[in-house]
Amino acid sequence: MLTDFGLQDPYVAEIKAVLLSRAPSVSIVDITHQVPKFSVRTGAFVLASAASYFPDGTVHVAVVDPGVGSRRRGIAIQGKRFRFVGPDNGVLIPAARMDEPIRVHEIQNPKFMRERVSPTFHGRDVFAVTAASLAGGEPVEAVGPSISDPVEPPYSSPRKIGNRIECEVVHIDDFGNIVTSVHSNDLAAWNIHAGNEIVVSIARRKVEVPFASTFSDVKKGKLVALPGSHDFLEISMNQGNAARRLGLKPGAALVLEM
Amino acid sequence: MLTDFGLQDPYVAEIKAVLLSRAPSVSIVDITHQVPKFSVRTGAFVLASAASYFPDGTVHVAVVDPGVGSRRRGIAIQGKRFRFVGPDNGVLIPAARMDEPIRVHEIQNPKFMRERVSPTFHGRDVFAVTAASLAGGEPVEAVGPSISDPVEPPYSSPRKIGNRIECEVVHIDDFGNIVTSVHSNDLAAWNIHAGNEIVVSIARRKVEVPFASTFSDVKKGKLVALPGSHDFLEISMNQGNAARRLGLKPGAALVLEM
Amino acid sequence: MLTDFGLQDPYVAEIKAVLLSRAPSVSIVDITHQVPKFSVRTGAFVLASAASYFPDGTVHVAVVDPGVGSRRRGIAIQGKRFRFVGPDNGVLIPAARMDEPIRVHEIQNPKFMRERVSPTFHGRDVFAVTAASLAGGEPVEAVGPSISDPVEPPYSSPRKIGNRIECEVVHIDDFGNIVTSVHSNDLAAWNIHAGNEIVVSIARRKVEVPFASTFSDVKKGKLVALPGSHDFLEISMNQGNAARRLGLKPGAALVLEM
Repeated sequence: MLTDFGLQDPYVAEIKAVLLSRAPSVSIVDITHQVPKFSVRTGAFVLASAASYFPDGTVHVAVVDPGVGSRRRGIAIQGKRFRFVGPDNGVLIPAARMDEPIRVHEIQNPKFMRERVSPTFHGRDVFAVTAASLAGGEPVEAVGPSISDPVEPPYSSPRKIGNRIECEVVHIDDFGNIVTSVHSNDLAAWNIHAGNEIVVSIARRKVEVPFASTFSDVKKGKLVALPGSHDFLEISMNQGNAARRLGLKPGAALVLEM
Repeated sequence: MLTDFGLQDPYVAEIKAVLLSRAPSVSIVDITHQVPKFSVRTGAFVLASAASYFPDGTVHVAVVDPGVGSRRRGIAIQGKRFRFVGPDNGVLIPAARMDEPIRVHEIQNPKFMRERVSPTFHGRDVFAVTAASLAGGEPVEAVGPSISDPVEPPYSSPRKIGNRIECEVVHIDDFGNIVTSVHSNDLAAWNIHAGNEIVVSIARRKVEVPFASTFSDVKKGKLVALPGSHDFLEISMNQGNAARRLGLKPGAALVLEM
Repeated sequence: MLTDFGLQDPYVAEIKAVLLSRAPSVSIVDITHQVPKFSVRTGAFVLASAASYFPDGTVHVAVVDPGVGSRRRGIAIQGKRFRFVGPDNGVLIPAARMDEPIRVHEIQNPKFMRERVSPTFHGRDVFAVTAASLAGGEPVEAVGPSISDPVEPPYSSPRKIGNRIECEVVHIDDFGNIVTSVHSNDLAAWNIHAGNEIVVSIARRKVEVPFASTFSDVKKGKLVALPGSHDFLEISMNQGNAARRLGLKPGAALVLEM
């Protein structure tokens, strides 16, 4: 489960209660409920980071749903190892793309909804019921018709122009590590290796950062660029908060020069 | 489980550890541990919101307990579908009232306590033991004598005077949705339907808000009144924080005019 | 599980996903993930507080790991009732010392690691795998060679000089209760009992506090010293925040006079 519901309200527990009422033997794992409110971008990134570590057959439920009650569709996705349930706003797509081939179906069959559906809480009244049914053996096809145009998530790909890489901040983690949109595969393709020095340009400011492999390769309080534990280039500070030092937020544009 | 213990300390884990030591096959679901400290009102509301979605036979444990170690009683309640365990300060009562008929018993039998009871932590030393015993099949009667005067929760009912409704803010959720004490049944009885305009008076300020059915019935950033997912009238903002905009806190008095 | 990872990122879920992939029938209980970043002191205190309440055979995993990827060792400890897994920086030691006799082994066997080990995330790639293997029946000896010099945690013992006790703040809990390093056994040995008055000296300020047994022994908003639910002397405020009132933080030095 991944949501932007926070932990102070009854909402997360209601979803779990509906799941356990309909699929009593299911084991529920929280990814996070602290996605910034309505941030499909962050929800999509965090789900995609965690999803692949789960056992085969896991049903991933993600509810970051600013359009709840509007005409946005609810979807269930059958991937190779996993199934995914949530709103059709892009939040499921990056995780599902790592689990191809995928088939996407719109949830229309009332059997996959509670008898009364609150227009403000599909997490409980649609997605929890769907997830419990899939966990109980229902095929994804049963939820409703196949669709071929799920909404894309709000990401951009990094671009390399000469020795400059234009990329963006995908996520700031709770330690202040800055996760960029540059994947380790990009770095390898572009022939960038540990030992290089990277110049990070933020607006008009330029910061020189060594490219290393772990935090303690630099002194406490120093910035370091490294391939993060999810294979994206991160800018970190040894035992400190890099995002606060550099004043960066998710979505910010960055230029890296080698 | 519902508490005001927060998530940084060992307290919640100790309760769970005691539960699992005595009832190893039990499955524990957190409702929340972030009830504002000592707020019996919020704890009672959140528990009552979530409780009914759980499977029959669930034991609900709520520990919001400003009077721990004083002469306030500990109680266990047998309802129709559920059992409830916690302090006798009103926190269990709204949830239990939705599960009538109920029988309330005071926890006096030392068999339902750890050998040594800390005067500051009945959650671990009394309520966890009682909950584990009830989950293991002990009847509620075994905890101690029946009582007929459990402490009432600090709620007031809304009043309709002409076309004015005097009510209060029962809860502010993590999205900033303002949950009022006006139930959908009240609205139906008073003949108030979607399409009406509601004037909300807060102290001397008046705000006009359309009464609709979901957030996206108004533009992003606009206020809307709607029947919430727990059937109480809520004042919300589409993709924004209504409580911050209106400067409202739990317990605040409101007057609604149609 | 206890970490300083916070709850907004995918990290905690990835550890759980690895655990459940390798030990599907394991039941995971969170102690906390909100240890202040890199605070081995707080992590060690919270783990030691909660550990003993768990069922025999529990594997405790603690990841507060500022030295991840450096030459600090990873260890597994076999105690009398429990096993412990985490970095060799002191975080496991106070809990393990309560479970003696203990044997400490360094994790060197690659069978107890994921195939690819991220230098920034041993929680997922080493400690989760080790914990799952131990839960599945592997002996602690299998992880690697025995070591006799695990790193000590950063605590100091209280000292009594005449009627003065020099001690420190070990933990501030979420209620603002100030947990000192003075154990109930120290109080008994020093002949200090409920009914005494304690003078707390903080820098040059002195505050008189009655020594009682529960919060409600003093009026709402008043300070009280009492033996906490983990048997350390605490300074608390009835329904208020003692740490905020006294301006105290973990690690602060205190002098108590009787």
